[in-house]
Amino acid sequence: MRFFSDNAAAACPEVMAALAAANSLDTAYDGDRLSARLNGAFSDLFETEVSALWVASGTAANALALAELCPPYGSIVCHRDAHIQNDECGAPEFYTNGAKLLLAEGEGAKLTPQSVADLLDSVRNDVHQTQPAALSITNATEYGRVYTPGETAALGALAKARGLAFHVDGARFANAVARSGCAPADLTWRAGVDALSFGFVKNGGLSAEALIFFSGRDIGPTLFRRKRAGHLLSKGRYLAAQLLAMLEDDLWLRNARAANDGAARLARAAAGRLVLAVEANELFLNVSAAEAQALRDRGFDFYDWGPGEVRLVTSWDSDPQAIDALAAAIASL
Amino acid sequence: MRFFSDNAAAACPEVMAALAAANSLDTAYDGDRLSARLNGAFSDLFETEVSALWVASGTAANALALAELCPPYGSIVCHRDAHIQNDECGAPEFYTNGAKLLLAEGEGAKLTPQSVADLLDSVRNDVHQTQPAALSITNATEYGRVYTPGETAALGALAKARGLAFHVDGARFANAVARSGCAPADLTWRAGVDALSFGFVKNGGLSAEALIFFSGRDIGPTLFRRKRAGHLLSKGRYLAAQLLAMLEDDLWLRNARAANDGAARLARAAAGRLVLAVEANELFLNVSAAEAQALRDRGFDFYDWGPGEVRLVTSWDSDPQAIDALAAAIASL
Amino acid sequence: MRFFSDNAAAACPEVMAALAAANSLDTAYDGDRLSARLNGAFSDLFETEVSALWVASGTAANALALAELCPPYGSIVCHRDAHIQNDECGAPEFYTNGAKLLLAEGEGAKLTPQSVADLLDSVRNDVHQTQPAALSITNATEYGRVYTPGETAALGALAKARGLAFHVDGARFANAVARSGCAPADLTWRAGVDALSFGFVKNGGLSAEALIFFSGRDIGPTLFRRKRAGHLLSKGRYLAAQLLAMLEDDLWLRNARAANDGAARLARAAAGRLVLAVEANELFLNVSAAEAQALRDRGFDFYDWGPGEVRLVTSWDSDPQAIDALAAAIASL
Amino acid sequence: MRFFSDNAAAACPEVMAALAAANSLDTAYDGDRLSARLNGAFSDLFETEVSALWVASGTAANALALAELCPPYGSIVCHRDAHIQNDECGAPEFYTNGAKLLLAEGEGAKLTPQSVADLLDSVRNDVHQTQPAALSITNATEYGRVYTPGETAALGALAKARGLAFHVDGARFANAVARSGCAPADLTWRAGVDALSFGFVKNGGLSAEALIFFSGRDIGPTLFRRKRAGHLLSKGRYLAAQLLAMLEDDLWLRNARAANDGAARLARAAAGRLVLAVEANELFLNVSAAEAQALRDRGFDFYDWGPGEVRLVTSWDSDPQAIDALAAAIASL
Repeated sequence: MRFFSDNAAAACPEVMAALAAANSLDTAYDGDRLSARLNGAFSDLFETEVSALWVASGTAANALALAELCPPYGSIVCHRDAHIQNDECGAPEFYTNGAKLLLAEGEGAKLTPQSVADLLDSVRNDVHQTQPAALSITNATEYGRVYTPGETAALGALAKARGLAFHVDGARFANAVARSGCAPADLTWRAGVDALSFGFVKNGGLSAEALIFFSGRDIGPTLFRRKRAGHLLSKGRYLAAQLLAMLEDDLWLRNARAANDGAARLARAAAGRLVLAVEANELFLNVSAAEAQALRDRGFDFYDWGPGEVRLVTSWDSDPQAIDALAAAIASL
Repeated sequence: MRFFSDNAAAACPEVMAALAAANSLDTAYDGDRLSARLNGAFSDLFETEVSALWVASGTAANALALAELCPPYGSIVCHRDAHIQNDECGAPEFYTNGAKLLLAEGEGAKLTPQSVADLLDSVRNDVHQTQPAALSITNATEYGRVYTPGETAALGALAKARGLAFHVDGARFANAVARSGCAPADLTWRAGVDALSFGFVKNGGLSAEALIFFSGRDIGPTLFRRKRAGHLLSKGRYLAAQLLAMLEDDLWLRNARAANDGAARLARAAAGRLVLAVEANELFLNVSAAEAQALRDRGFDFYDWGPGEVRLVTSWDSDPQAIDALAAAIASL
Repeated sequence: MRFFSDNAAAACPEVMAALAAANSLDTAYDGDRLSARLNGAFSDLFETEVSALWVASGTAANALALAELCPPYGSIVCHRDAHIQNDECGAPEFYTNGAKLLLAEGEGAKLTPQSVADLLDSVRNDVHQTQPAALSITNATEYGRVYTPGETAALGALAKARGLAFHVDGARFANAVARSGCAPADLTWRAGVDALSFGFVKNGGLSAEALIFFSGRDIGPTLFRRKRAGHLLSKGRYLAAQLLAMLEDDLWLRNARAANDGAARLARAAAGRLVLAVEANELFLNVSAAEAQALRDRGFDFYDWGPGEVRLVTSWDSDPQAIDALAAAIASL
Repeated sequence: MRFFSDNAAAACPEVMAALAAANSLDTAYDGDRLSARLNGAFSDLFETEVSALWVASGTAANALALAELCPPYGSIVCHRDAHIQNDECGAPEFYTNGAKLLLAEGEGAKLTPQSVADLLDSVRNDVHQTQPAALSITNATEYGRVYTPGETAALGALAKARGLAFHVDGARFANAVARSGCAPADLTWRAGVDALSFGFVKNGGLSAEALIFFSGRDIGPTLFRRKRAGHLLSKGRYLAAQLLAMLEDDLWLRNARAANDGAARLARAAAGRLVLAVEANELFLNVSAAEAQALRDRGFDFYDWGPGEVRLVTSWDSDPQAIDALAAAIASL
C-alpha cells in the first residue's frame, strides 16, 4: 500500500481507452484532429478564449511558460520551496537562457502579497541586478496548501501593479479546484494569471500535461520553443487524446476529488499530528522514526520528510480500504 | 491511402498491449522495473555493454546526444540536408548552448569521408572559429539512403583520427539495419559510433525513442540534461514498456522490413522515375504536377518535394493492397 | 613594414590624449560625464536621434546587436564569408542563446537582394525551422568591398518587406563612408538599418567600439545584456573618451581616408593582380608563393589568403613611404 | 571629496605610462609580446606555474572562471551577498548556460566551512537538483572583510572533500593580500584555490583584470569562451601592459596598502560606529540620516547603505588630507 506519490499512480481507464481510440493514422505533430480540439475544449472549461498546448511533462510546461514570461536577463519570483526551484534541475534557467529565481518566504510554500512585495522591494532598479519579470506560484503548493481565489487575485493584483507576468504551476491544479469548489477561471485569469501549467499526469493521465495561456497572448514563440526543446512529439494525438478524455464529463475534477477525499480521511485520523492543514492530497505528519517503522511494518510505504516527519500522498485511485487501514494504523500509533 | 510520413502511422498492437500491461503503480521517473531493464535489453541487442535512456522524441534524443558530444564553443559536422539542421528548429543549438553546425555535401544526404575531410580542412585551428567536436550522420538518411557498415566505419575512422565524437541520428535506424542485413553493432560501435538516437516512433512506437551511448561513456551529464529539459517523464515506465515491446522477438526489425518491402514494391513500379535509389522506406519520384494530381484524384496522399518531384513514405502498417494500388497507379501514369 | 591587419595598428595620438584627459575620478560604469555625451554626439553625426553604447570589441557589438534583433528560435541571414559566421567563435549563437546563421552567397562577401531573397524563399514557414528575423551585412565587407547607399537601401527594403531587422557590422564602417563620400545616415537609417556596430579600433582607437541603435528602439534590454556579458566596464569613461575623440573634427573619417588612400595607391601598382576591386583598405592579390616570398624578403609582412593569393591591409597610420616601397615592389615582381 | 567607490578612481601614472609605451603596432589579439609575458609574470608572483588571461572586467573574469568550473546543470555555492549573485545581472548564469547559485550565510559576506557544509548537506543527490560543482568566495568580501590563509585553506579543504572546484572573486584581492601580509600563494593555490579573478581596475588599473588558473588546468576552453564572449580584444597588448605595470615592483601591493591605510585611519576615527571590523578598504558605519547630511554638507560623498548606515570606500589615490578631514568630521559628529 503505497503512499509515496501521485506521480507513480496508474493512468485511469478513460485515458487508456482514449489512447486506443486515437490509435490510427492521423496527421503528425499537432496537426491531428484531436490536437485541433484543445483550444476549444479548454476555452469552454475556462469560460474564456485560451490557447492550450500539450506537453509531456510538468517541468516542460513550467519551463516553457517561464521562458515566455521572463527574458534571459530577468528574474522570476517564487517560493523558496517551489518545484521550479528545487525539483527541476534548473529547467527554468535552461529554457529562459539564464534568468534567475528569486526566493520568497511563506508558510506551507504559499506566497503572500507581503512576502512578494518585500522581495521585490529588495531589488535595486539598475542594470546590475536582473529585474523581476514574472511571479510563479504553485497551486496546490508543494506542501498541499491551496490558494483561494481571493489569495490568488491578491497576488495577481500585486503582479500587475509591479509589471510582473503571473504563472501558476498547477501540477495539482485539479486538487486546488476540487478543494476550492470554485470555477477554474477563479483561480486563473479572473485572478490575473497569464499562464497555467495544468497537470494531468498526477491525476490519472499517462503522459500529457496542458500548458494554458490566457489573455490572448501570442503563443507563436512558445510553439517554436516547444519544438526546439524536443517537446513537439510526432504523434501528438495521443497526448491530446488524454487531455480530452480527462476533460470529458469533468473526469479531472472527479479524480482530484477522490484524491482529496482520501487525504481528508487520513487527516481526520491523524488530526493531532498534522504539520500543516490538509487542503489537497498531501499530508505532512509528525511521526517519529519508530512510529514510521511501525507503519512500514504493516505494509505502508511513504517518504520521510525530515526528522520526525513523513509525507503521505493520495491519488485518484487510492484504494479506500488501504486508506481506511492506514487511517486506523495512524490512529493506533 | 496516405503516404505522407511514417511519423503519422498508428502504434503497433504489441506496443498498445505493453502500455496496458504497464498500467499499474510503480516507482516514478525512471525508477520503475521496466526502465531498469533497458540497459540489459539494449546491451543484448548491441552485443556490448551500452547505456540506454528513453526520451519522448527523436529531436530530444539527437539534441541530448549532441550536447554530450560537443561543447558550446564547438561545432558539429553534418550534412546540409540533415534533420538536425533543417527540421529541429535549432534544438542542437539550444541543447548545446550555442554550438554551430557545419554543413557538408553528399548525394542523397549521405556524407563521405572526403566531403567531411574537406569541410574539416577548411576550419582554421584558432580561437576565432568553433572547432569541430562531433560528426553526426543520419542512417537511413533524410533521402532514404542507407550507410553500409563499411561506409559507417570509414566515417568512424575519420572521426577518430580527427578527434571527433560520432553520432548517428537513427530515426530510421531500424530501416537501415533491415536493409543492410547486418548486426546493429555493425552500424554503430563496431564502426566507431559513440551515440545513437534509435528511433521507434516512426516504426510502430507511440511516444518512445531510445538514446544509446556506447563505449562506457558516463551518462551522468545526460541524465541531468534530460531532467533539465523536461524529458524525465514522471511515468517513464510507459516509455520503457514501448521500447521493450519493440525489442521483443525483433518486432522493431520486422516492422522495418515491412516498411522497406512496401517501398521496394513501389520502387519497382516506379523504376523509371526514381530520383534516388530506394534503400529504406522513402521514395523520391519524378512526377509532374499533373501526374501528382492524377494520383491524388485516385485517393493517394503524399508530399510534393520540389517542382516535379514527390516523396512517398511507407510504414510498418502500410496496407499491401494500398501499396499495390499505388504501384499500379504509378505504373499507369 | 607590416600589412597584416588594421587590427594591430597603434592608437592615434588624439585617442591617447583623450585617455589622459579622462584620467580623473568620475562616476563608475556609464554614469560619467563622457558617456553621457555619446547619444548626443552620435545623433549629431547621424542627423537623427540615436542611442549609442560603448563596448570593448566589435564581436561584442555585433553579438549584442543580434541578440536584440533575433530571438533564440530565430535565424540571421548573413554572407557565407561574414565575420559573424567565421571569426567570432559562435558569439552570435552565444548571445542570442542559440539562433542560427543562414548563409547566403555573393561576390566579395556582398549580399544582393536576389541572394537574400533566394535564401529566404528556401525556408519553410513552420515551427520545424527557425524563422529568419534579422539580416546582417558587413560594410565594408570582409573582402574590402563597399555597399553603396543604394545597395544598402535595396537590402533594407527587402528586409522590411520580409519582416527582418537590419544590422550592419561596421568594423570598417568608416572606410565605407570614406569610400562612398555619402553621409553616415545614407548607409544606415536612411537605408533601413536598425543597428550598427560602428568600429573604431581598426581605425585608430585603442579599445572602444560603438553600438548604435536607430529608429527609437528601446535599448533597455541591451543595457542588461551588456552588463550580463561583462561588457559594462567599471571605468567606462575611458571608452567614451576614445569615441568622442574620434568624432571630434571627423577624425574617424580622416583616418579612414588615409587607410583607403594607401590601399588605392597599392591597387594602382597591382592593377593586374587584383582578385577584387579595391574599395576600402583591403587588397586581395594574385601573387604566387615565390612572389610572396620575394616581397617578404624585402621586409613586407602580410597574410597568405589561399593558394596564390595574399591579403594586404592598410591602416590609418600606414607609413606613406612603406606604401610606396610596397607599391614599387609589387610593380617590379 | 568622494568616497563612493574605488571603481571610479583614476588609473595610476604607471598604468598610463605603460599604455603609452605599448602604443605601437604589434600582433593583434593576444599574440603580442606583452601578452606573451603574462604567464611568466604571474607565475613568478604566485611561486607556481599559472595560466593568466587578461579580460576587461571583473564580471567577465568571474563568469569565465565559473563557466570553466561548473557545468550548465551544476550549481555554485556562494554567499548570499556575493557580487556574482547581486551585482552582475546574471553573468554567471549567462556564461555557465544556466547553472544555479546556491546561497550560504555568514557574517560580513564571509562563508565558513560550517555554513557551506550546511548548504551542501541540504542538496539531494539526485537528478532533480543541480549538484554543487563549485565554491566561490570573494576576498576581500563585499563588506570589506578578509579571509585569512587559514580560513581560505579550510574552505579549500572542504571544497576538495566535497568534489567542488574553488574560485576566488578577487576584485579586491590586492587589499586582502595587503591586509594578510602573506604571499599571494597562501590565499590561492596553497589553500586549494583553482581559479582567481585578480582585480586591478579598482586598484589603479584602467581596464584590465587578470583571470588566473592554478594547478595546470587546461585553459583551452576558456580561451574559446573568452573569444565567444567578445572579450578577446583585438589590441590586447594594452591590457597586458596594464597588468605588467601593476606587477612591476609590486605596485599592485603598494596601491592596495595605500587604500587599506586610508580605511584604517577612518576606522580609528569612527571606532564607535563600525558595523563591521575594517580589514580592507571599505567601511560600514552607523550614521544617522542627519549625520550623513552633515558630512555631505562638508563636501564628503558616499553611499547610504540601508537605514542608519553608510558605506565609505578608500582607494589607491585617496587624498590623505581628504581622509584626515573626513576622519575629523566623523569624530566630531
